Amino acid sequence: MSDSLRITLSQLNYVVGDIAGNAAKMIAAAKEAAGQGSELIVFSELSLTGYPPEDLLLRPSLQLRVEAELEKIAEASHQIAIALGFPWREQGELFNCAAVYAGGKSLGRYAKQCLPNYQVFDEKRYFSAGEAACIVELNGRKLGLTVCEDIWHKGPAEQAVAAGAEMILNLNASPYHMGKQQQRVELIQQHVKALKVPLLYVNQVGGQDELVFDGRSFAVAADGQLVAQLSAYQEQSQQLYWQQELTTEVALQSTETGLASLYKALVQGVRDYVDKNGFKGIVLGLSGGIDSALTLAIAADAIGADRVKAIMMPFTYTSGMSKEDAAEQAERMGVPYESVSIEPMYNAFMTALAPQFEGLARDTTEENLQARCRGVLLMAVSNKTGYMVLTTGNKSEMAVGYATLYGDMVGGYSALKDVYKTKVFQLAEYRNALGYVIPQRVVDRPPSAELAPDQKDEDSLPPYDVLDAILERYIEQDMSADAIIADGFAREDVMRVLRLVDVNEYKRRQAPIGVRITQRGFGRDRRYPVTNGWKAGI
Amino acid sequence: MSDSLRITLSQLNYVVGDIAGNAAKMIAAAKEAAGQGSELIVFSELSLTGYPPEDLLLRPSLQLRVEAELEKIAEASHQIAIALGFPWREQGELFNCAAVYAGGKSLGRYAKQCLPNYQVFDEKRYFSAGEAACIVELNGRKLGLTVCEDIWHKGPAEQAVAAGAEMILNLNASPYHMGKQQQRVELIQQHVKALKVPLLYVNQVGGQDELVFDGRSFAVAADGQLVAQLSAYQEQSQQLYWQQELTTEVALQSTETGLASLYKALVQGVRDYVDKNGFKGIVLGLSGGIDSALTLAIAADAIGADRVKAIMMPFTYTSGMSKEDAAEQAERMGVPYESVSIEPMYNAFMTALAPQFEGLARDTTEENLQARCRGVLLMAVSNKTGYMVLTTGNKSEMAVGYATLYGDMVGGYSALKDVYKTKVFQLAEYRNALGYVIPQRVVDRPPSAELAPDQKDEDSLPPYDVLDAILERYIEQDMSADAIIADGFAREDVMRVLRLVDVNEYKRRQAPIGVRITQRGFGRDRRYPVTNGWKAGI
Repeated sequence: MSDSLRITLSQLNYVVGDIAGNAAKMIAAAKEAAGQGSELIVFSELSLTGYPPEDLLLRPSLQLRVEAELEKIAEASHQIAIALGFPWREQGELFNCAAVYAGGKSLGRYAKQCLPNYQVFDEKRYFSAGEAACIVELNGRKLGLTVCEDIWHKGPAEQAVAAGAEMILNLNASPYHMGKQQQRVELIQQHVKALKVPLLYVNQVGGQDELVFDGRSFAVAADGQLVAQLSAYQEQSQQLYWQQELTTEVALQSTETGLASLYKALVQGVRDYVDKNGFKGIVLGLSGGIDSALTLAIAADAIGADRVKAIMMPFTYTSGMSKEDAAEQAERMGVPYESVSIEPMYNAFMTALAPQFEGLARDTTEENLQARCRGVLLMAVSNKTGYMVLTTGNKSEMAVGYATLYGDMVGGYSALKDVYKTKVFQLAEYRNALGYVIPQRVVDRPPSAELAPDQKDEDSLPPYDVLDAILERYIEQDMSADAIIADGFAREDVMRVLRLVDVNEYKRRQAPIGVRITQRGFGRDRRYPVTNGWKAGI
Repeated sequence: MSDSLRITLSQLNYVVGDIAGNAAKMIAAAKEAAGQGSELIVFSELSLTGYPPEDLLLRPSLQLRVEAELEKIAEASHQIAIALGFPWREQGELFNCAAVYAGGKSLGRYAKQCLPNYQVFDEKRYFSAGEAACIVELNGRKLGLTVCEDIWHKGPAEQAVAAGAEMILNLNASPYHMGKQQQRVELIQQHVKALKVPLLYVNQVGGQDELVFDGRSFAVAADGQLVAQLSAYQEQSQQLYWQQELTTEVALQSTETGLASLYKALVQGVRDYVDKNGFKGIVLGLSGGIDSALTLAIAADAIGADRVKAIMMPFTYTSGMSKEDAAEQAERMGVPYESVSIEPMYNAFMTALAPQFEGLARDTTEENLQARCRGVLLMAVSNKTGYMVLTTGNKSEMAVGYATLYGDMVGGYSALKDVYKTKVFQLAEYRNALGYVIPQRVVDRPPSAELAPDQKDEDSLPPYDVLDAILERYIEQDMSADAIIADGFAREDVMRVLRLVDVNEYKRRQAPIGVRITQRGFGRDRRYPVTNGWKAGI
């Protein structure tokens, strides 16, 4: 009968670049696991630097910092074996490594073989690919190391098993997008059935700029059964017992999917951006519309209503209903609420500009001016108080440029940047089902920017269900205009929407970063030229 | 005696994504060269799509568009052989290809082997690497194809020569940075001496978002001699005659280096951004300081003074000297000039914010508010007139965050984003030497943001020569704080400057794009996390 091993999976929330802090956090978790009788603790990919460290990886002094902290990890490994991830430079090349430390020294260091260089990932910018398996032996059991992307291909795990691995450790930094956990589990289960050895999948948790890592680390037994799954978005460690079989006292801690999981992603992204960057709180413009209503709910759920300020900034076109609804929501949520009219500022600008504008017709300039007076007000409050402005725009608006640069687009971060308007409605209903905070009228009324008399979004855009369906095909699926039209959409709508997406790249380039929740967010994920002669068509 | 060949090098200014337009442009140049007796015309890398096409390369319909235009190229090749570059999809993989068309068909297609994935380049995101040489035969002469990065390594050209190439064609899209042409020529000359065959290096010209391509295509004879060099930043075609030796009637058309070349890069970047994106003109805030003075000169040199508007936006702290100097420069350059005080807007905001700000001390909020009133004014003029706001900040400011987001940072494009302040002074002197336009007092007086009484930049920053020296070491050379201090800078200055660079990433992320002229610009070139726990030190 084979030797046994008690293993703790540990999913933590790291701060990118804070190598000493991340090491200390892992060592604390390792000590706790040792106290519970674990013999090995497994952390996630590049846990020492946090993921993704981006161009910090190019700093020559990185290696010195990594070496200094690995000495502390080695020291802590007298109590418990520690599997962790870190960048490692050797003979002028940098590798994305995983290693197991035990008894004060490294038992083996593995270099990631499959380097993702698509979507938000740029790993070939930094790393050279490893070539060899790395098997470490602990309590007489052979463990094969792999890192993230390795497991989405067949080679590295098969190679490890061929080299004698009785279990695969897979250290991940796998960002959330809708439906991702199901993909991960299904893929790994299928994989394991062929490999015939158990696999431990450890992810990190928390927000890092546009990415949110959902944790949900899991273990799959040799027969492909899901033995354990940790919580979504929570720092957590869980012990497994491995002898013949892989067992645990607590099996599935998180089975949340869909809107619940999505809402948590948005909350986590906002919370970590605000807290890791040291902001006192959040200030936002509450308009009485659904985007700012949902954003306010997310903000309050993320950092607490007492750290949030809502400001209504009415003008001539702001309806009484908007003012009432904004005030009602703030009261329901216990968020401090103030109202500051933009009328005097707007009028001062128009007076100053009168000589320039003489003889020119009214156009969107005046609408943008309203939005910009609001932006300046919010930024003044932000600068004076240390509260960060949270932008309230959604993905549909970002896509077609239905937003004012330096106006409603001001802010440090955006909660809804990657959330289509149709999904905004669903999330508002979902949030209200947890506890009624967004006045129903905000959800039910036709959306309006209220920048002109009796304006409705659908006066200048197709209905949101049509708009979003076109956008998703163009942005996420890379479909051509002809292909989208063939799917049953009106040519005129399609051509107009695609043109708007193309010509508004300049706005997105200056937009705040925001939580990515799809497989094609507007950020590192979609790198389009601003100067772009591509015309919608085939 | 070997057969002869008349070859035209053609460096053109393409529009990224405008595949049909770029094909038409190449065909027109090919016809002209054929009319002059040329038998082969050589264009640059990815000339069909323009460079860099970025994520347009991921669109499935790209291949259809490429194929359609290659048919027209093939048709034109009945008159003259055509070497060009284009993306090509085969068996699910995309390649960065060069091909020679002659007599209505392709003589051979080469796939780039060395794919740059560093600095601003992301070619591994899109392309698979080729493996084989491609030799095409024309008039009995064997030509080996290579693409850009290939020539910065030894393999591909050696492989081509081993396969029989008597000449190397190297199709490039090589962006400018200071000193680059000398690097290129020296490298190729050294290379050619070993290869013992002549080499034709063809680059594109023109601005594409943050990149500027300087052209300066050149030919090196088999003995390493520089036989021809085309102009910088100009569309140009030049014929070479190749029999035993490689000869031409005009040798070196461009030998400009240093400030002259740098100034042209800035002008070209601005011109192409404005014109390729269809703006009517440029509007900018002229403050009486040196950054906006130089930016105005660049703008007028780029698109003509009649398409530029300068607006002075004085406030209490604006000196009489600033107003005089701004007006004088505008007059000297023949640029329409207006003055709009921000006082009424500033006061309206302060009155509206009085309840919020009660009991709180004056701080940078009030300074930012001035900058933001100016930003809103400029954007209103831009929206109403179709003139693009050209931002006036420099690299030193961008680095340390000495700029107001949504204030002086508003704009579609930035001329000086990658130009350190010390270089701004040199460029102003250089421009004045061509024709005096910037009042000497603007160059001589100590820089001030004029956002508070008697303010000088050096009150809150180290002197610019010290600041820029520290910044260049940290940003361009990736030196650590300790290493910079060891170079003789005060620890206090170094730690403060590095901290400012690190914490101001969020501003740069929302800054307008601007001309890149160093080897580490703030754009695609430097991908730092905003949420960043890295502390300056080792």
